[in-house]
Amino acid sequence: MKMISENKAFGGRHIRYRHRSEVTHCDMTFAVFLPPFANKDNPVPVLYWLSGLTCTDENFMQKAGAMKWAADLGLALIAPDTSPRGEDVPDDESGDYALGLGAGFYVNATEEPWKQHYQMYSYVTEELPALVESALPVTNERAISGHSMGGHGALVIALRQLNRYVSVSAFSPIANPIDCPWGKKAFSAYLGKDKSGWEDYDTSVLISQRQHTIPMLIEQGTADQFLTQQLKPERLLNAAQRSDTAITLNMHEGYDHSYFFIATFIRNHLEFHASHLGLI
Amino acid sequence: MKMISENKAFGGRHIRYRHRSEVTHCDMTFAVFLPPFANKDNPVPVLYWLSGLTCTDENFMQKAGAMKWAADLGLALIAPDTSPRGEDVPDDESGDYALGLGAGFYVNATEEPWKQHYQMYSYVTEELPALVESALPVTNERAISGHSMGGHGALVIALRQLNRYVSVSAFSPIANPIDCPWGKKAFSAYLGKDKSGWEDYDTSVLISQRQHTIPMLIEQGTADQFLTQQLKPERLLNAAQRSDTAITLNMHEGYDHSYFFIATFIRNHLEFHASHLGLI
Repeated sequence: MKMISENKAFGGRHIRYRHRSEVTHCDMTFAVFLPPFANKDNPVPVLYWLSGLTCTDENFMQKAGAMKWAADLGLALIAPDTSPRGEDVPDDESGDYALGLGAGFYVNATEEPWKQHYQMYSYVTEELPALVESALPVTNERAISGHSMGGHGALVIALRQLNRYVSVSAFSPIANPIDCPWGKKAFSAYLGKDKSGWEDYDTSVLISQRQHTIPMLIEQGTADQFLTQQLKPERLLNAAQRSDTAITLNMHEGYDHSYFFIATFIRNHLEFHASHLGLI
Repeated sequence: MKMISENKAFGGRHIRYRHRSEVTHCDMTFAVFLPPFANKDNPVPVLYWLSGLTCTDENFMQKAGAMKWAADLGLALIAPDTSPRGEDVPDDESGDYALGLGAGFYVNATEEPWKQHYQMYSYVTEELPALVESALPVTNERAISGHSMGGHGALVIALRQLNRYVSVSAFSPIANPIDCPWGKKAFSAYLGKDKSGWEDYDTSVLISQRQHTIPMLIEQGTADQFLTQQLKPERLLNAAQRSDTAITLNMHEGYDHSYFFIATFIRNHLEFHASHLGLI
């Protein structure tokens, strides 16, 4: 694990690391924010942040304004990349930003040519936590959040990885990927035409299957240009009603899909996770 | 003046505008953040933010985390571009980021080929305020701040434009451009080899010439890679001592030249300006 850069911020440290991944078979980059006073003798819990289409580890750290609140709360932030990267990693041939590089969808691909590298589900849930928990002053107390494709990823992971995350939240998540254009294209490529495997990566399906008790907080802007075609947050409410699962979905008048929306409400999410992580 | 984009943020609005400039003879883009409740019947004072080398109107709005505090304080933010732009606007032929596009240095160029478009001093001090004060719900109560090249610009403007700005602040300003590599190269190109005109654009010279009473707040990180060669903040203290001018220069252990540093301390600067603008 090699440090690429380090910046002091809000009394803590923002550090970018690169490491060889055994899971995605390429070099992976991730960013961490360590709050003030985090050290070997005082490890801190972690909020994992999964970013959306086209993002890298940098967008959240630069644009969300989250570090201020993480520093105040004593919470570490970890932002992985959104896909494998490198010259030998396949990309969508048509250049579609919603498939290939920057668009790993947090699944383990089963199909050629994707399956050798596109193993983002295992990377985010297993390899990355094991790495950071051994190398950085963080505990194994984890919460998870994300935006858009990363909101989908955070919800799917928290719903499947029972007891690995204490709370989950999302901004503008792709709520029902098996039934939207982005999800159908990505899942067809990564998981194949046989749709039987798709449901394991669909938040609405997972919620509808049984009652979930993990605390779940979701924000959505009403002026989001992807709201009706891609995101479909109402599917979450329908699914939650079927399984008697409690979720909080806040609809915000006039907000769009951008990081300006995330920045506006990120404090609430950090405090939500901090409360479940026992920090406040 | 044409709206390019609009995002709701922190209950207010982030808007990017493009307009034809009579001063720089090209289309100029700038960004504004209007806090909640700013409207024709309730115009609000403005903090102008001048960005550093390579930046556009976007960096500050996306990375500084300033909107939260501006929204709380009832302060508008306006971020102009850092140079003229367009196909017929000359750029440095060697591709140096410190001259030409993205590097207007907030001067009025007197030399060929720069002088037709590189009139950023007049643009920022006259044309832009007149435009926004006629078209947007803002008052003519102005404060000014900036980063690096923009810190230089903010200080020079506030020191020369008496009574036009109520307070000035800067992050990591180029304090003595007539005696650092960035400044010498830019001023040679824009202002010519005759150095007699350079001093009008040099903060340390301007401060040393007479006592200034405008409230002045400066932040500087000790781990800034440009500290000793380009920025030279100690020159400000020497100049202030000569003219018996009061300035506050805060040196911050371990902070670098990035927006992570700005984000850490921007709240203090907005509150400083808000207090002088009568908002708190």
